[in-house]
Amino acid sequence: MITVLVVLGAAAIAIIYALLTSYKVIKEPPGSGRMIEIHEYIKEGANAYLKKQYTVISSIVAVIVVLLTLLGWYRMAVSYVLGALSSITAGFVGMKIAVNANVRTANLAKEKGLNRALRLAFNGGLVMGLMTVGVGLMLITLQYLVYGLVYGETPEAINDIIGYSFGASSVALFARVGGGIYTKAADIGSDLVGKVEVGIPEDDPRNPGVIADNVGDNVGDVAGMGADLFESYVGAIISTMIIASTQLRGFSLSFPWSSFVLIPLVVAAVGVIASILSSFVVRTREGGDPSRPLTLATVVASILIALMSFFGITQLISGELGVRIWVVIVAGLVAGVVIGVTSDYFTNSKYPPVRRVAKMSEAGPALTILTGFAYGFLSAFVPTVVIAIASLTSFLVLWLPTQEFWLGIYGVALSAVGMLSLTGVVVSADAYGPITDNAAGIAEQADLGEDVRRITDKLDAAGNTMKSVSKGFAIGSAALTALAFIGAYASILQYYTGANLSNLFQSLTILDAGLISGMFIGVVMPALFTSIVILAVSDSAFVLIEEIRRQFKEKPGILEFKEKPDYGKAVAIVTSYAIKRLVLPGLIAIVSPLVVGFVLGPHALAGMLLAATISGLLLGLFQGNVGNTWDNAKKYIEAGYHGGKGSEAHKAAVIGDTVGDPMKDAAGPSINILIKLMSIVSLVFAYYMISNNLYQLLVP
Amino acid sequence: MITVLVVLGAAAIAIIYALLTSYKVIKEPPGSGRMIEIHEYIKEGANAYLKKQYTVISSIVAVIVVLLTLLGWYRMAVSYVLGALSSITAGFVGMKIAVNANVRTANLAKEKGLNRALRLAFNGGLVMGLMTVGVGLMLITLQYLVYGLVYGETPEAINDIIGYSFGASSVALFARVGGGIYTKAADIGSDLVGKVEVGIPEDDPRNPGVIADNVGDNVGDVAGMGADLFESYVGAIISTMIIASTQLRGFSLSFPWSSFVLIPLVVAAVGVIASILSSFVVRTREGGDPSRPLTLATVVASILIALMSFFGITQLISGELGVRIWVVIVAGLVAGVVIGVTSDYFTNSKYPPVRRVAKMSEAGPALTILTGFAYGFLSAFVPTVVIAIASLTSFLVLWLPTQEFWLGIYGVALSAVGMLSLTGVVVSADAYGPITDNAAGIAEQADLGEDVRRITDKLDAAGNTMKSVSKGFAIGSAALTALAFIGAYASILQYYTGANLSNLFQSLTILDAGLISGMFIGVVMPALFTSIVILAVSDSAFVLIEEIRRQFKEKPGILEFKEKPDYGKAVAIVTSYAIKRLVLPGLIAIVSPLVVGFVLGPHALAGMLLAATISGLLLGLFQGNVGNTWDNAKKYIEAGYHGGKGSEAHKAAVIGDTVGDPMKDAAGPSINILIKLMSIVSLVFAYYMISNNLYQLLVP
Repeated sequence: MITVLVVLGAAAIAIIYALLTSYKVIKEPPGSGRMIEIHEYIKEGANAYLKKQYTVISSIVAVIVVLLTLLGWYRMAVSYVLGALSSITAGFVGMKIAVNANVRTANLAKEKGLNRALRLAFNGGLVMGLMTVGVGLMLITLQYLVYGLVYGETPEAINDIIGYSFGASSVALFARVGGGIYTKAADIGSDLVGKVEVGIPEDDPRNPGVIADNVGDNVGDVAGMGADLFESYVGAIISTMIIASTQLRGFSLSFPWSSFVLIPLVVAAVGVIASILSSFVVRTREGGDPSRPLTLATVVASILIALMSFFGITQLISGELGVRIWVVIVAGLVAGVVIGVTSDYFTNSKYPPVRRVAKMSEAGPALTILTGFAYGFLSAFVPTVVIAIASLTSFLVLWLPTQEFWLGIYGVALSAVGMLSLTGVVVSADAYGPITDNAAGIAEQADLGEDVRRITDKLDAAGNTMKSVSKGFAIGSAALTALAFIGAYASILQYYTGANLSNLFQSLTILDAGLISGMFIGVVMPALFTSIVILAVSDSAFVLIEEIRRQFKEKPGILEFKEKPDYGKAVAIVTSYAIKRLVLPGLIAIVSPLVVGFVLGPHALAGMLLAATISGLLLGLFQGNVGNTWDNAKKYIEAGYHGGKGSEAHKAAVIGDTVGDPMKDAAGPSINILIKLMSIVSLVFAYYMISNNLYQLLVP
Repeated sequence: MITVLVVLGAAAIAIIYALLTSYKVIKEPPGSGRMIEIHEYIKEGANAYLKKQYTVISSIVAVIVVLLTLLGWYRMAVSYVLGALSSITAGFVGMKIAVNANVRTANLAKEKGLNRALRLAFNGGLVMGLMTVGVGLMLITLQYLVYGLVYGETPEAINDIIGYSFGASSVALFARVGGGIYTKAADIGSDLVGKVEVGIPEDDPRNPGVIADNVGDNVGDVAGMGADLFESYVGAIISTMIIASTQLRGFSLSFPWSSFVLIPLVVAAVGVIASILSSFVVRTREGGDPSRPLTLATVVASILIALMSFFGITQLISGELGVRIWVVIVAGLVAGVVIGVTSDYFTNSKYPPVRRVAKMSEAGPALTILTGFAYGFLSAFVPTVVIAIASLTSFLVLWLPTQEFWLGIYGVALSAVGMLSLTGVVVSADAYGPITDNAAGIAEQADLGEDVRRITDKLDAAGNTMKSVSKGFAIGSAALTALAFIGAYASILQYYTGANLSNLFQSLTILDAGLISGMFIGVVMPALFTSIVILAVSDSAFVLIEEIRRQFKEKPGILEFKEKPDYGKAVAIVTSYAIKRLVLPGLIAIVSPLVVGFVLGPHALAGMLLAATISGLLLGLFQGNVGNTWDNAKKYIEAGYHGGKGSEAHKAAVIGDTVGDPMKDAAGPSINILIKLMSIVSLVFAYYMISNNLYQLLVP
C-alpha cells in the first residue's frame, strides 16, 4: 500500500510540475504585431482541426463503448472511456501549450538570446512529456486500487485495466493517422507549389498553405507523437501487470504476486522523477549547440533510472531475484539507447550515410532515392537485432534460475517498461521539435531579421536530431510493447482455456498451418496500412496543390504582398480530407484481428500478431529513418555542400525529402500504433474468440 | 519402376525437344552487316561476363564441396556438384540461344513480319524453359534411382538429394545477384548519361554503355531468372520427396510410401509435357497483339496440367485420397495464376494503378515515387493472402480425413510442386522478354527502319507484360518452396532427434524466446540483403557514369558518329564491379543461418527461416511490382498521355523507372533465392546443429 501511495505521489508531482511549467511558459511575453497575428492563425487552425478530429474519434469511441457494454463488460467499458479521455486530454493540453510556446520562443530568441529560447521551447515540450507520464501512471494506479478494493484483486479485474490501454490506443491511432495525413498533405502541397513552382521560400507568408503547414506540425507531431508514446507507456505497464496477475499467482518463490504487479508501476514512477530531474541540465551558453543538452538530458535520465530503480525493485523483491529483475530493466533501457544511437547514425549529417546520399544527389534524384532507400533498410538491422537480444536476455535472466516460463515472459514485458521509463524525457525532447519548427516559421513570416533566424534555425536543427532519435525509440518500444501484449494474450489464452503449458505451446507451434496463414496475413498488414496512409496523403496534397494554384491565379496580388492569401480555405481543405481519410486505416487495425480471430481462431491470430509486429518494426524503422536521412541530406546540401541551395544536387535532395515526408511523419509512426492496437483488440476479445470461431467447427 | 521410366521419358523428351528447337532457331538467317556486328559484340560481352562469373562461383562451389567432403557427406557432395553444374549448364545454354535468337528475331521481323518473329523469339525462350525442367527432372529422378538401388531407399539417401538443390541454389544466388548488379548498373549508367545528360535515345549506338546494357539483359534476365526458377523447381520436388520419405513411411493407409515420393515427379513430368503442347498456341496474325498467345499458352498449360495430373496421381493413389492430392495440386496452380493476375493488375497500363501513377507524375517525381511506393505495398496484399489460403487448404485437405500431421505438411509442399509444374511455360515466356528487348535494341542500333521497329517494339511490350507476371510467379513460388523446405527441415529435426510430434511442436512454439529472437533476425535479412544489392548497383552505376562521361569528353567525335565509342571498356568496368560485389550478399545468405543455428540452436533457426520467408515474400512482391508499375507508367506517358515524351510528367516517370530498375531486376528477384538458400543451408546442416550449438550449453 505504501508503494502504491509513493507511485501516486510521483504521478501527482509530474502533473503539478507540468502545470507549474505551463504557467511559466504562458507568462512569458508572446511578442507583438505580426507575430501575434500568425500565432492566432495557427492556434485557430489547430483548435479547429483537433475539435473536428476528436468529434469523429468520439463517435467511433462511442460505438466501441456501446459494444463493450452490450457484451456486459462494464469495468472494461469504464476503463476504455478513461483511456480515450486521457489520451485526448494529453493531446489537447500538449498541443495548447505548444502553440503558445512557439511564438514565445521566437520572441525570446529576439529579446533574450539562445539559452532562454531553448529553455522555453524545452519547457513547452516538458509539459507534454510530464502530462503523458503523469496522467497515465496516475490513472492506471487508481484503477488498480479501486478494482482491487471493490472486486478483490482477481485477475479478471486487473485484466480489465487493458480497457484503458484500448481506449488510449484507439484515440492514438486515429489521431496519429489523421494528424499525419494533415501535416504531410499541408507540407507537401505548400512546398510543391510554393518552393518548387513559384519559387518563394519555405514558411513565406504569401503561400496560402503556410498556416496549414504550421498547424500540421502541432496536430501531427505534438498531439500525434504524444498519443503514440502515451499508449506504449500505459500498454507496457498494463500488460506486465496482467502477466503477473494471471500467471505469477501460484508462483513458488517467497514473494507475493502483488510485488510483481507493482514493479512496473515503481519503475514508471522512477522514470517520472528522473524526467523532472534531468530537465534541469537543458541549458546552453550563447553560441552553443542546443542539441547537446537535449542529448545529455536523455543520458542523465537513463543513468538516474538505472540507479534509482535498483533501490525501488530490491525494496519489493530482495536478494538475487530482485537484482535479476533490475538487469531486465537495464536491458530495456540499453536497447532504447542503442536504437536511438543507430537512428542518429543513419540520419545525422555528421555520419557517412547522409553524406553519401547527398553526394549521390549530384547524379540526379533517382540515385538520391535509391541510396536513401538502401540505407533505410540497412538502418533496420541493428535495432532489430538489439531487440532480439534484449528480449532473449530478459527471458533467460528470469527463466534460467527459476525454470518458471511465465516469469521469463514477465521479463520480456518488463524490459519494455524499462525502455519506456524514458517516455517523459523522450516526449519532452520530441515535442520541443515542432515548437522550434513553428518558432522558426514565425520568425520568417514576421520578418524578425537574420540574427533571430539564426537562433531559431539552430534550435530547429537540434529538434530534428531529437526527432529521429525519438522516432526510433517510438517504434522500438512499440515492438517491445507489442511483444508484451502477445505475452499477455498467451497468458489469457491459457488462463481461460485452462490448458497446461505444454498444451499451450503445442497450440502455438509454427508448424500449425492455421498459425502460418495468420503469419502471412500479419506480415502484410503494416504494408497495407502504409499504402493506404500514403495514398491518402498524396491525394490530399494533390487537392491542396490545386487550391493554392487557384489562389495564386485568381489573386495575382498575393505574390507582390498586395493581396492576402486565404489561409482559412487551405486549412479547411486539408482538415476535411484528413478527417475523411483517417477512418479506413483505423477500422482496418481494429477489424482485421477480429476477422482472423473469429474465422481462423485465436492461435492463427497469435501468428498474425507476431508477424505484424516484426514486419511493423522493419517497415517502421525503415520509413522513419529513410525520411530523416533524406531530410538531413537536403539540409546538408543547403549548408553549402555539393553546390548548395539551388544546385541540381539540391533539387534532387528536395525530391528525396518530399518522398520521405509522409513515410517518416505519417505512415511510419502510424505503424507503431497499428501493431499495438491489433494486439490490444486481440487481448480484449481473446476470451470470446476461444469458444466462438469458425475454425473450430472445421477442426474440432 | 514403370512410373520412374515414364518420368525419365518425359524429361528426355523435354531435352530432345529443346535441342531440336535450338537447331530450328540457329538455322534461321541472322541478318547481315551492322546487325551481325552488334550481335557479335553482345555475344562476346555476355560470354566474357559469364565466364568470369562462373569462375568466381566455381571457386565458392569448390570450397563448399571440400567442406561437405571433410564432413564425410560424400553423396551430398556429389549431388551438390551435379546441382551446381546443372544450373550453370541451363544458364549457359539458355543465354547462348538467347543471344543468337535476338538478332534472328530482328531479322525475321524485317523479312517475314510479326508472326514469324514472335515464334522465333518464343522458341528461343522455350529452349531455356525446357532445358530447365528437363535437366532438373532427369537428374533428380536419376539420383533417386541410383541412391535407391545402391544404398536402398533409406531416408538418409533420399535426404542427400537435397545437395542437388543446394548446388543449384548456390549458383543461382550468385548468378542472380551478379547478373542483377550487372544489368542494372549498365542500364542506369547508360541511361543517366545517354538519355538524360546528352539527350540521345535509348539503345543509341553512340552510347559507350549500350552494349553493356544489351549484355545485361542476357546475363541478368535470361541466365538469372532461369537459375532462380530452376532452383525453386528442383527444391519443391526434392523437399516434398524428403517429407514423404522421412515421415510417411509408417503411414497407416493402404499405399506404399514410395507412391508419395513419386507423386511430385509425376506432376513435374505432366508439367513438362504440358509446356511442350502449350507452345503450339503461340502464333498470331499480322497486326495482332503478341501478348495474347503468350498468356494463352499459360492458361492452356494450366488446364492441361490440371487434367493430366488427375490421371497421373490416381494411378499411384487411387480413391478419395488420390482426388484430395489432386486438389492440392490444383490449389497450387490456382494460387500461381491468381498471383500472376494480381501482378498484371498492378503493373499493366490498362488498369488504374499505373494510370494513377502516370497522372500523379504531372505534379513531379516525388508523387510518382510516393504513389508507386504505395501501390507496390498494396500489391503484396492479395498474393500473400492467396498463399496463406493455398497452404492452409493444402494442409487441411490431407490432414482432416487422416489426422496424419505429416500428410498435411506433405500437402503444403506438394502445392508448391503444383504451382511450379508451370515452370517450363513461365521460363519460356520470361526468357522471351530479353530476346525481344535485345531485338528491339538491334533494330534501333542497326537502323532497320520504322516498320521493323514497330514490330520489335510490339514484341518487346508483350515481353514486359510477361515479365511482371513471371516475377510475381517467381517470388510466390519461392515462398511456397521455402515453406516446403521448412516442412522438410522440421521433419528432419524430428527424424534425427527422435522426438515425438508433440515434443516437436513444443520446441517450435512462438512463445519460445529463442525462436522469437530468430524471427526478429529473420525478418530483417531480406531488408539487409536488398540494401547491399542496391548499394552495389548504385556504386557500379556511378563508376560507369564517370567512364561514359570520360569517353564523350575525350572523344567528342562519338556524338557525330565520327569516332567509335569503346564498348569493351564499359563492358569490362561493369563486369569487374558486378563480380566484386556479388560475393558479400551470397555469403550472407549462406553464413547467416549457420550463425543463428550454431549459436541460438535449430529451433531459433526455424523461426528465422519462417520470418525471412514471409518478409522476403513481402519485400520481393513489393519491389518486383513497384518497379514494373513505374516502368509501365513511363511507357504509358510515352504513348502520348499526360504530355507524352519530353513533358514534365515524362521526366518524373523516367526517374520513377530508374528507381524501380534495381528493385525489380536485381534486389527483388535475389530475395527469391535468398529465402530458399537460407532454408536449404539449414536443411543440410540440421543434423549437425541439433547436437552442436551454443544455446544448449546455456539452456540444456
